[in-house]
Amino acid sequence: MKKNVLIIGAGGVAQVVAHKCAQNNDVLGEIHIASRTVSKCEAILESVRKKGAMKQEGVLAAHALDATKSADVADLIRKTGAEIVINVGTAFVNMHVLDGCIETGAAYIDTAIHEEPDKICETPPWYANYEWKKRDLCAEKGVTAILGAGFDPGVVNAYARFAIDMMDEVKSIDIVDINAGNHGKYFATNFDPEINFREFTGVVYYWEDQQWKETTMFASGHVWDLPVVGPSQAYQSGHDEVHSLATNYPQADVRFWMGFGDHYINVFTVLKNIGLLSEQPVTTAEGLEVVPLKVVKACLPDPASLAPNYTGKTCIGDLVKGVKDGKEIEVFVYNVADHKEAYEEVGSQGISYTAGVPPVAAAMLVASGEWDAKTMKNVEELDPKPFFSILDRIGLPTRKRIGGLHGEDTAWDA
Amino acid sequence: MKKNVLIIGAGGVAQVVAHKCAQNNDVLGEIHIASRTVSKCEAILESVRKKGAMKQEGVLAAHALDATKSADVADLIRKTGAEIVINVGTAFVNMHVLDGCIETGAAYIDTAIHEEPDKICETPPWYANYEWKKRDLCAEKGVTAILGAGFDPGVVNAYARFAIDMMDEVKSIDIVDINAGNHGKYFATNFDPEINFREFTGVVYYWEDQQWKETTMFASGHVWDLPVVGPSQAYQSGHDEVHSLATNYPQADVRFWMGFGDHYINVFTVLKNIGLLSEQPVTTAEGLEVVPLKVVKACLPDPASLAPNYTGKTCIGDLVKGVKDGKEIEVFVYNVADHKEAYEEVGSQGISYTAGVPPVAAAMLVASGEWDAKTMKNVEELDPKPFFSILDRIGLPTRKRIGGLHGEDTAWDA
Repeated sequence: MKKNVLIIGAGGVAQVVAHKCAQNNDVLGEIHIASRTVSKCEAILESVRKKGAMKQEGVLAAHALDATKSADVADLIRKTGAEIVINVGTAFVNMHVLDGCIETGAAYIDTAIHEEPDKICETPPWYANYEWKKRDLCAEKGVTAILGAGFDPGVVNAYARFAIDMMDEVKSIDIVDINAGNHGKYFATNFDPEINFREFTGVVYYWEDQQWKETTMFASGHVWDLPVVGPSQAYQSGHDEVHSLATNYPQADVRFWMGFGDHYINVFTVLKNIGLLSEQPVTTAEGLEVVPLKVVKACLPDPASLAPNYTGKTCIGDLVKGVKDGKEIEVFVYNVADHKEAYEEVGSQGISYTAGVPPVAAAMLVASGEWDAKTMKNVEELDPKPFFSILDRIGLPTRKRIGGLHGEDTAWDA
Repeated sequence: MKKNVLIIGAGGVAQVVAHKCAQNNDVLGEIHIASRTVSKCEAILESVRKKGAMKQEGVLAAHALDATKSADVADLIRKTGAEIVINVGTAFVNMHVLDGCIETGAAYIDTAIHEEPDKICETPPWYANYEWKKRDLCAEKGVTAILGAGFDPGVVNAYARFAIDMMDEVKSIDIVDINAGNHGKYFATNFDPEINFREFTGVVYYWEDQQWKETTMFASGHVWDLPVVGPSQAYQSGHDEVHSLATNYPQADVRFWMGFGDHYINVFTVLKNIGLLSEQPVTTAEGLEVVPLKVVKACLPDPASLAPNYTGKTCIGDLVKGVKDGKEIEVFVYNVADHKEAYEEVGSQGISYTAGVPPVAAAMLVASGEWDAKTMKNVEELDPKPFFSILDRIGLPTRKRIGGLHGEDTAWDA
């Protein structure tokens, strides 16, 4: 049994995590939140208090932290007595936070893969470049580290595991992420624009025929007819979970599909072709060195600011194909979330909500011992059923369709 | 008779000016070129020497100059003995260079209106905000200042004057600028992107029914069927010459039309809507203050770099309508230039060529005394015929069509 949570980061996802931890502080204990800018943490705590989100009286505290310094992370873990760290800071800090956890023995949970600022889309599988190099050390020290426990990666990894467990043999996993919401802005990204665009400017890796294959963004499109949101244009994109699922299920083809409208593609294409999405610095005529992508980020709306006017729904799920009792079988496991409901509950838009609720569910499973693995795990390596049970309860219910996208629709445990 | 020329600026237009001055140094005397970055001046002089452009032996020298300091400008004028200054530096330095000329008595020639970095598209008429405030001082001191003596503004002002002189009454002046060239890049501007975009992000002023009217960029389009380049989509744009022509010919409607393809408009619209064309600084997440437009400029190709592969032609002209002997009359006065020919002659693309040749013609007329006005003038206030004679000879021949766009085509003096 572990308790007391330290949340690292103070963006839109951290806000959801803080609200959800507060709603479950009977299980999780004290709630600490830390970021470079402590005022952003305080604003989140204020929002938690305003909603009266704390299930029972308890500690709710903000801290200033430079999470690129693992010694500082370790110090704060010791000072707060946190036994569970939920890292929802920028992807650039992951390895430093993980090191702080390994040093102190705290459990580590994140929602996205580590990135180095000057590199994009490195050699697959991505996890092998950074996180998995620490797997033996985690096992040796008995440190629990759950990688990629947001929605995608995260819940979709559990969806894959759940569907595969129903089969004798898995043949393919197609993860489809459609946001059919409308934020009313000319253009905005739902996550940190820097991280969002970095996903799409490099090589798109996917796994087919037991090998890594490559394509480019928007080169491979497909219209997916999904529950609630209907037929939606999506494109193969690079995404973290492809890299762990392909490693854990090498016999299956693994692809990730992200929904994009023509307008998004047009804006992306213009910015990319001009060089404005580059992570490499340019020098202005006045001699100022600046990374164009960081300027684009500064011009775009803060993803958190989209929440109040965001309407519509998201549908994210896994279409898994395989063989069961000698017959071909298709299972679609999915969730539908609503932007407006998310805002009303936790003051964030639906994309932040889907990313922020799952790591809290994971933390609750670490607290209860069910997912306290004492080693490093990707989500598909853990039992999905207790995860789904908590997600059902705290806002992201899982449904399934046996027979594929248009099969019979039931709750996952029906 | 004035002689010895000081060129200020070292971009693509300055290169053309230097070549053309060299080709006419029997009239113009010594040629000096000055810029903040002296190596850029030296590269231009090297290109002049390589082409063997000097008509006769003479001085050809480079100087370092911060043209935002009028005292430094005056010092360099005195040091070089220049009696004519051709200012083709950034539009932000105009008033400082003019002040240096007024202090020393040197003649001043520029090709674009003065701009302040943090303001765009100020109150019309634009010239009244800066340049014309110095008109009385120029007259008092006998200083010649010729404003806007590039192609547009510049030659097109002379086209208007020439056509109007053929009429008893002028009713409208439509200036049309079509670049039907192809530079082979995804996107590029033909001038400094910063100045280029600033022209299009603010209010579009035009003069109709004896008053200033306003529209926005790309709101008012028209297909103009021009000589050589054929039917071309153009849009009403804000442009310097509208502001002087409307003042000098208030009885005429005055509009400026710039040709744009759908691709240009799409890129412009995306950049503008995101805020990347803003001249106001933004602050990145890392705390760096930066003007987005300057970053866009740093990402786009240097306009001078387009020259080697630029193909196709430009057509720029004035369709002037009026009354002659009680009958309605239309005259189209125009020039066609060729990108490849410009590159072969002076190492620059056609847009720089059309902008850089006219101020040299103006300088030659100041040198000969024909345009040595001893006061401040816009080009339409000067006799166009000697200007056309020189332009015919040095690379930008003038043609006219009596009866409008599809009227009889002749040389201007036929």
